[in-house]
Amino acid sequence: MNAIILSIGDELVLGQTVDTNSAYLSAQLAGLGLAVSAHVTVADDQPAIEQAIGQAIGQCTVLLISGGLGPTADDLTRQVLAAVMGVELEMNHAWLHRLRAFFAERGHRMPEANTIQAMIPRGASMIDNVAGTAAGIDATIGACHIMVMPGVPREMEVMFQRDIAPRLAQLSHGAVILSRTLHTFGVGESRVAEMLGDLMRRDRNPSVGTTVSQGIVSLRINSRFQQRIQAQQALDETEQQCRAQLGDLIYGADGQPLAEVLGMMLIQRRATVAVAESCTGGMLADYLTEYSGASAYFKYGWVTYANEAKISQLGVSPQVLEDHGAVSEPVVAQMARGARERSGADYALSISGIAGPTGATADKPVGTVCIGLAHDQAVQTHTFHFSGERHTVRDRSAKMAMTLLRFHLLGKSLPS
Amino acid sequence: MNAIILSIGDELVLGQTVDTNSAYLSAQLAGLGLAVSAHVTVADDQPAIEQAIGQAIGQCTVLLISGGLGPTADDLTRQVLAAVMGVELEMNHAWLHRLRAFFAERGHRMPEANTIQAMIPRGASMIDNVAGTAAGIDATIGACHIMVMPGVPREMEVMFQRDIAPRLAQLSHGAVILSRTLHTFGVGESRVAEMLGDLMRRDRNPSVGTTVSQGIVSLRINSRFQQRIQAQQALDETEQQCRAQLGDLIYGADGQPLAEVLGMMLIQRRATVAVAESCTGGMLADYLTEYSGASAYFKYGWVTYANEAKISQLGVSPQVLEDHGAVSEPVVAQMARGARERSGADYALSISGIAGPTGATADKPVGTVCIGLAHDQAVQTHTFHFSGERHTVRDRSAKMAMTLLRFHLLGKSLPS
Repeated sequence: MNAIILSIGDELVLGQTVDTNSAYLSAQLAGLGLAVSAHVTVADDQPAIEQAIGQAIGQCTVLLISGGLGPTADDLTRQVLAAVMGVELEMNHAWLHRLRAFFAERGHRMPEANTIQAMIPRGASMIDNVAGTAAGIDATIGACHIMVMPGVPREMEVMFQRDIAPRLAQLSHGAVILSRTLHTFGVGESRVAEMLGDLMRRDRNPSVGTTVSQGIVSLRINSRFQQRIQAQQALDETEQQCRAQLGDLIYGADGQPLAEVLGMMLIQRRATVAVAESCTGGMLADYLTEYSGASAYFKYGWVTYANEAKISQLGVSPQVLEDHGAVSEPVVAQMARGARERSGADYALSISGIAGPTGATADKPVGTVCIGLAHDQAVQTHTFHFSGERHTVRDRSAKMAMTLLRFHLLGKSLPS
Repeated sequence: MNAIILSIGDELVLGQTVDTNSAYLSAQLAGLGLAVSAHVTVADDQPAIEQAIGQAIGQCTVLLISGGLGPTADDLTRQVLAAVMGVELEMNHAWLHRLRAFFAERGHRMPEANTIQAMIPRGASMIDNVAGTAAGIDATIGACHIMVMPGVPREMEVMFQRDIAPRLAQLSHGAVILSRTLHTFGVGESRVAEMLGDLMRRDRNPSVGTTVSQGIVSLRINSRFQQRIQAQQALDETEQQCRAQLGDLIYGADGQPLAEVLGMMLIQRRATVAVAESCTGGMLADYLTEYSGASAYFKYGWVTYANEAKISQLGVSPQVLEDHGAVSEPVVAQMARGARERSGADYALSISGIAGPTGATADKPVGTVCIGLAHDQAVQTHTFHFSGERHTVRDRSAKMAMTLLRFHLLGKSLPS
């Protein structure tokens, strides 16, 4: 069994709305052991919808459609479905009654236009909508089961959970797919792949694949078996194998943000961190305070963008700035030490770099970033060379600073 | 001419990642006058990609593909494209050289796996990637123009703006569509629509539509005529009419960021701004330093997340904190005054609020945010109530602070 998800709406193909329904439905179907082979999105356009349904029914056993069930002239899904089925639309009197009651309860007369929402293709059945006026449709064409839901995400989700999921569970005689995603930061995607080696073989089950987003290299593990218990055991085993290869490079799982993981580590140790930023301009502080509860470990930050600010706010020596330049390990060492002393925090992170596109010198190209970490014994400093545009250099710098503190808290050094 | 957008990735059909590329590309293509007829998403699976490309090339004149250009075994787009074209992959030595240099600059040896990223189907041409290692591919099958981009949103966007958009503009014949987007911040979308009135009529040419992204309400003007000069004149005229209705609510055009506009205004006035942030945790400083050249107007920022930091770093009175609470106009007034005095900046912005989800009190619900603006005459303070999640409240607070300074520099007050 496999599924195709079809989303219908002008706002989607015009790029005015990001389609979140397809991702939601895919994740739900994976949990039911139903593989999704494609997402398709088309406009509120009769021939386009007809072609999309016509192609899909030959390629899948379950077709989930969302959108185009509203009362207005641009809502065409029920009409097109009837045409593809080769049948007429007929009135569902029970739903018409429900619609009239829905409006009456709200003190309105039902607009004539809403009558269409009580019509479904002959031979199909209606799916209750407890959250709105657009009932769903359950139909069959050949070997393909078709279920139509409203496009409004909340109505779609309620209908899926309440009625569609149980119907699919009945249809599904196949495998269960369980997934887990592990996140790393600190080395590139190809290095991660090298470390994983045979675990990434295409024919392996559970399979392991990598993706990169904003410098974070993630591993997706998909475990597909006939029975849930097998799938779970194999998933756990492959996760352990990946962890054995990558060790502490893996900072979290299933969407956990790096800043949140670091925050939890600090909370567990009842420790605090202060930051002193130059080229990142507040981005590191922003990341560290993105999650509720940050006040437990974060109290002070300085954005010392100008040299005079580094001197007056953090006690950096004008002579050291003069001798080594603002982007240097001696300067980030003084920044980190100054921030730690002034804040009374257990740790302080400092960043000074050349985010670009201007500011490069012969020996310090764009992307050169110095990071300092002050703790009770000493100050560590590092120099990195990040590639990419200004935003990317700043983002990687902030994430690397968090990663350095994470490895320090683990009592380990960053792998290369 | 019409376009199909094909996104490739296991993480998409598994519902682990929401596809934002398709919406981005659709909005961009709409601006170029290219109708998008469908979005299609398939897994990192050879037969599925082959079928999707095979079907699409018969149904569109432009096929935009994103994803599957990475160096690992699950990245299959270039191989499948070559198969559909019926040609071999061949080495692009110029790009191989660039790849080796890319790694060498960072002090690494290029992993063997990355070699594949220098290969493209014979007869296709490479599209430069200035933000990463995955070059794009420009190919033709029959009457269909195919352009392949990396799946990482940021790399995709940079490549689209830099290379794909100009190529598509060249392909487009027939009517000329000229577009301009005007950006506002400070009032809601329905208020903007009210102010625009008849300018938003559906049958108007040039047309005026609104979209909202991250609190920014944008007006998109599309002017469609046979000749460029007509299209340009009508576009200019409609832009003037929109500006007449909305006045200084419009801060910029065509993607100009609010922070950059504010930065230019400060540079023109040879003025500087300092910031003192609590709930936004560095986000305002981050926004203000996002663009190269920020050092001309931004030198100092404080993230005084804890009360003790507000007291020790900005001179906020413990008594005022005790009497009014950290989220109060008297406190942001003292924060702004302290930041202005300590930095010597011409202006200082301060923010203290309840970003949520925790921290609300009976009289200060989540979303309550106080903003202060210190200048040479006095300190202005304001209280806002933003709705939405933590990230949204922080983002709106930072943008509103910049907007208050913008209106102050204009010598006007914010419209309501």
